[in-house]
Amino acid sequence: MPEKPHDTARISFADLVETLQKIFVKAGVSEANAAVLAVNCAGCERDGGLSHGVFRIPGYVASLNSGWVDGKAVPILERSGPALLRVDARNGFAQPAWAAALPHALDMARQQGAAVVAIRESHHFSALWPDLEPLAEAGFVALSMVTGLACVAPPGGRKPVFGTNPLAFATPVAGAHPMIFDFATSAMSNGDLRLAARAGHSVPPGTGIVRSGALSDDPKQILDGGALLPFGGHKGAAISLMVEILASALTGGQFSSEVDFSAHPGAETPRTGQVIIVIDPARGNNAVFSERVRNLIDSVRDAGQARLPSDRRYRTRESSEREGISLSVEQRDALVRMAAG
Amino acid sequence: MPEKPHDTARISFADLVETLQKIFVKAGVSEANAAVLAVNCAGCERDGGLSHGVFRIPGYVASLNSGWVDGKAVPILERSGPALLRVDARNGFAQPAWAAALPHALDMARQQGAAVVAIRESHHFSALWPDLEPLAEAGFVALSMVTGLACVAPPGGRKPVFGTNPLAFATPVAGAHPMIFDFATSAMSNGDLRLAARAGHSVPPGTGIVRSGALSDDPKQILDGGALLPFGGHKGAAISLMVEILASALTGGQFSSEVDFSAHPGAETPRTGQVIIVIDPARGNNAVFSERVRNLIDSVRDAGQARLPSDRRYRTRESSEREGISLSVEQRDALVRMAAG
Repeated sequence: MPEKPHDTARISFADLVETLQKIFVKAGVSEANAAVLAVNCAGCERDGGLSHGVFRIPGYVASLNSGWVDGKAVPILERSGPALLRVDARNGFAQPAWAAALPHALDMARQQGAAVVAIRESHHFSALWPDLEPLAEAGFVALSMVTGLACVAPPGGRKPVFGTNPLAFATPVAGAHPMIFDFATSAMSNGDLRLAARAGHSVPPGTGIVRSGALSDDPKQILDGGALLPFGGHKGAAISLMVEILASALTGGQFSSEVDFSAHPGAETPRTGQVIIVIDPARGNNAVFSERVRNLIDSVRDAGQARLPSDRRYRTRESSEREGISLSVEQRDALVRMAAG
Repeated sequence: MPEKPHDTARISFADLVETLQKIFVKAGVSEANAAVLAVNCAGCERDGGLSHGVFRIPGYVASLNSGWVDGKAVPILERSGPALLRVDARNGFAQPAWAAALPHALDMARQQGAAVVAIRESHHFSALWPDLEPLAEAGFVALSMVTGLACVAPPGGRKPVFGTNPLAFATPVAGAHPMIFDFATSAMSNGDLRLAARAGHSVPPGTGIVRSGALSDDPKQILDGGALLPFGGHKGAAISLMVEILASALTGGQFSSEVDFSAHPGAETPRTGQVIIVIDPARGNNAVFSERVRNLIDSVRDAGQARLPSDRRYRTRESSEREGISLSVEQRDALVRMAAG
């Protein structure tokens, strides 16, 4: 009896990585870059970050096929100062550029106490937390910001200027996984807005505007010539503006509003920039840092916050590692077909 | 005819600084520290930051009189790495500690490309933007965060853990004043909450909770055993948590929830920590940085955002410089009396 359409398939992390790697290579990505992209994408799926998991594979492939992004790009590292590393991603995906920079970022932060990595000409088409987790695992605190495709209007505005411009922060925690938050500075992610439109649901007031600039709770109208708004009113808008300044102006990348892939039908990825700030608490003679963070997090839980950033991610990871990563049978079959070409 | 109570007095910046300096010295502050505090406080008043201007003078004086803060503290600078400077404010106000660190921060960022200053044992009782303006004026981008007195509960929580934990960011802008934002990561500042309570107004939903943890729009109940909430829901709460981690755990300062001045009646200032992150765009061979920021800001205005962070501050400063700083006659007379002792 054939499996029913909504049956669940379980796949190991290693098998998913292998399958995705084949898909990337078939789409024209170099072996080295494909390995990095496959681990990143499979990790998002494993940890429950479904909107950055295998769901994104068609977008990766279409963007590669369109000629918009170079899957074989070899990033160029430029040491601009003892604590400042610039990376030209050469119109490739951001993950391989960051993979090349990461060991240097660790060394720089260890030696200098702090380091900044400024990546430009990069397509960041994934989550930010996988970029920061290795830093926090190694004992560092880190911040990252990345720009995207303009779909967020400033407050009071009528047209989009900002991307969903996520901000992420990671810190070691004594005796526990690192705590990492990673969220869009828009009121809602583009993916959730599309899901609401498809389901015919309304969205909370303040989520977005229609073409005229009027506030709307109708996701279809927000998508059709309107725009999202930043989270948290003027404060969130200020943070979104900061992300443009640090991830695009400082790096030498394009602003979200400058991305233009109209000559590349099928393209979906932003070609902008990303910044990563790394600080070494141990360099500051602060050996008790991760214990203090642990105390703080305990006190936040004691005060009644039920769930802290990344709690759910680690729980999902654990269950994926125990039982395999959960895909629908169709998803798994589609991936296997793509990998077989 | 005597002046009416609500008549306005105009005072020059230099005269206000001189008056405040005398008040600080009379309250037991060293001449050097008094000069720094007076310029800081007069600058806030001049620029329209009234909640950090002369309004705060009684709080400064009461805190000094209570023995809680040391007005004569001499900060100790510890170079923990080429790009990491730790500062022990020695239980003094944060402004003199930062004034001592600033030239080093500029040198470090110029030489290394980036620098982090971690101040502990400091009382930050003012705004953050005056700390960052000299950095942006010198061509640097900068971020700062500071912890406070616990009055903000995490989402879903019942008791305060965070201070109002402001976040500030500054950037040079070609042909214009630096753009600087500086806001509390709580839904409302403590000062505004108190004003609403006094006026008998309700506050927007989401501003705070009552003692039981239930949401409330009654500022009196929020103040009476309740707590403020972070701005922007879970995202704002994550940022407030990050401020505790960077400004307190990383620096070695106290968390907002650890401040205890109950043995010092009259004390009002937080004894926590502050972090400042400085990046030099020019060190990254990015000569066009401030022009790109200018373009971005122009595009945000074009998209319809009427007022950007710090617009109002510079307009108020200009009018204060032209016409003198506006105080009420009572305010001015009270200051003159305090200065004369």
